[in-house]
Amino acid sequence: MTYTYVKGHGTENDFVLLPDLDGSVHGALSDAEMADRVRALCDRRAGLGADGILRVIRTAAYSGSDRPASEAEWFMDYRNADGTVAEMCGNGTRVFAEYLRAAGLAGDEVTFATRAGDKTLRASGDVWTADLGSPKLLGSTQVTVAHHFWPACNVDMGNPHAAAEVESLDPHGPVGDLYDSPIFDEAVYPHGVNVEFFVRVAERHVAMRVFERGAGETRSCGTGACAVMVAAAEADGLAVARDADVTYRVDVPGGTLHVTWTTDDRVLLAGPAVLVAEGTTTL
Amino acid sequence: MTYTYVKGHGTENDFVLLPDLDGSVHGALSDAEMADRVRALCDRRAGLGADGILRVIRTAAYSGSDRPASEAEWFMDYRNADGTVAEMCGNGTRVFAEYLRAAGLAGDEVTFATRAGDKTLRASGDVWTADLGSPKLLGSTQVTVAHHFWPACNVDMGNPHAAAEVESLDPHGPVGDLYDSPIFDEAVYPHGVNVEFFVRVAERHVAMRVFERGAGETRSCGTGACAVMVAAAEADGLAVARDADVTYRVDVPGGTLHVTWTTDDRVLLAGPAVLVAEGTTTL
Repeated sequence: MTYTYVKGHGTENDFVLLPDLDGSVHGALSDAEMADRVRALCDRRAGLGADGILRVIRTAAYSGSDRPASEAEWFMDYRNADGTVAEMCGNGTRVFAEYLRAAGLAGDEVTFATRAGDKTLRASGDVWTADLGSPKLLGSTQVTVAHHFWPACNVDMGNPHAAAEVESLDPHGPVGDLYDSPIFDEAVYPHGVNVEFFVRVAERHVAMRVFERGAGETRSCGTGACAVMVAAAEADGLAVARDADVTYRVDVPGGTLHVTWTTDDRVLLAGPAVLVAEGTTTL
Repeated sequence: MTYTYVKGHGTENDFVLLPDLDGSVHGALSDAEMADRVRALCDRRAGLGADGILRVIRTAAYSGSDRPASEAEWFMDYRNADGTVAEMCGNGTRVFAEYLRAAGLAGDEVTFATRAGDKTLRASGDVWTADLGSPKLLGSTQVTVAHHFWPACNVDMGNPHAAAEVESLDPHGPVGDLYDSPIFDEAVYPHGVNVEFFVRVAERHVAMRVFERGAGETRSCGTGACAVMVAAAEADGLAVARDADVTYRVDVPGGTLHVTWTTDDRVLLAGPAVLVAEGTTTL
């Protein structure tokens, strides 16, 4: 079977998009068959290679038991590279929106369904801004790499984060190469955690590396960038004392993001979305 | 600028093919511009991702100063993922031949030009066999990982190899994770070396891992599989005492190859070639 795909990325968090507008392309597959297809597509040697799959389908055409109760026309049916269904992907929302716009299915503002609720994105040129909701600041914790440990900020962005301010991100320094997961408090994070390390670059400007739960170090993590911004703003006394929206620049290995924490407690993630190729595959 | 590409792999050594039959697609680029394009295409996050690029061009249409003096119609213009021009790629020849056949430009036997001379390949179903020429057995050397060392066989397959028989390929064993290059004798290999570790699986059946010069551990290395076969056959007393062609099965992390050492001292590499996708890109 031959079907179409599009390849794209947001700050080098990369995706294969599968246009399946009416569900006729992949809709007949069982969950296990779809998981196999996702793994084949995401394989970086034998397949096309991606961190995950963004299937583009009309919400009404989606036949899975987890169909969102949403009025939005389009549904971002996201799966991780390992084939598992995932609720959300911050960088993925921008790439999904860019596809809808490029395909003429949406304009510069679009609301679409995800498994974590409807998301609204707005474009200014090739930068898309996604509203990722309200963060939960859950106090202090600690992360450890080898014999170094750092206090960390426990931030919930719908998924769990531990954001630690460090002196240096140098892989030859204490943070290290991050081949293995940092050690965290399993009582605080019984289902694991995404661990961010960040340094100060300038006022309201940080740089970070991230170890993603189940994936290892990645080039970018959208919710991780939000967690880092919230942790930095909290340390800067802006968590409770904001009288205006606050924006931080967050440099990730794969590019630059800007995170805004609004006075009404929303976190807005802004960054690029790039479509690099399209074609057909038999995978 | 939009141009077409094809993605394929041979035992998970993967390539982007660039059909440019008359040189009109990429021929106007300078060497530096082409190197930039190759890096962009091979980038595994921001691009399509590949170990290298196989440009498909008529030999007569190739305008580079290194145009082969060959009567063959097609030239495999190969570059590594880092943009550098490379002479040859064993697994790449099979994928190149499979593309020519799939595109109707060749049949089940094809001779094409490479920077290392003309190569002839023959297909049996989806298995292609490439004649990689005569090996040079250059004696014994030694390779070291951490505090373990092994004697190794110095084999030249047009490029240098050190093939060491070991007890186990387990990454938790002495061979280790191969994040860093094994240590080799720089007097023997002043320009570096590809290091293979192999174990015996059965009679004339070995399994290997490889650390490629300039690339790190890879899923497969065609000339490395040939070097391992030659080293194993030499240890088995078949280097000088062959009265018939000898074939070994060589398992690599990305699949299975078969290497034959003929009575007239040619090494034939047989394995699969798979085309998984085609499309257009602006990279």
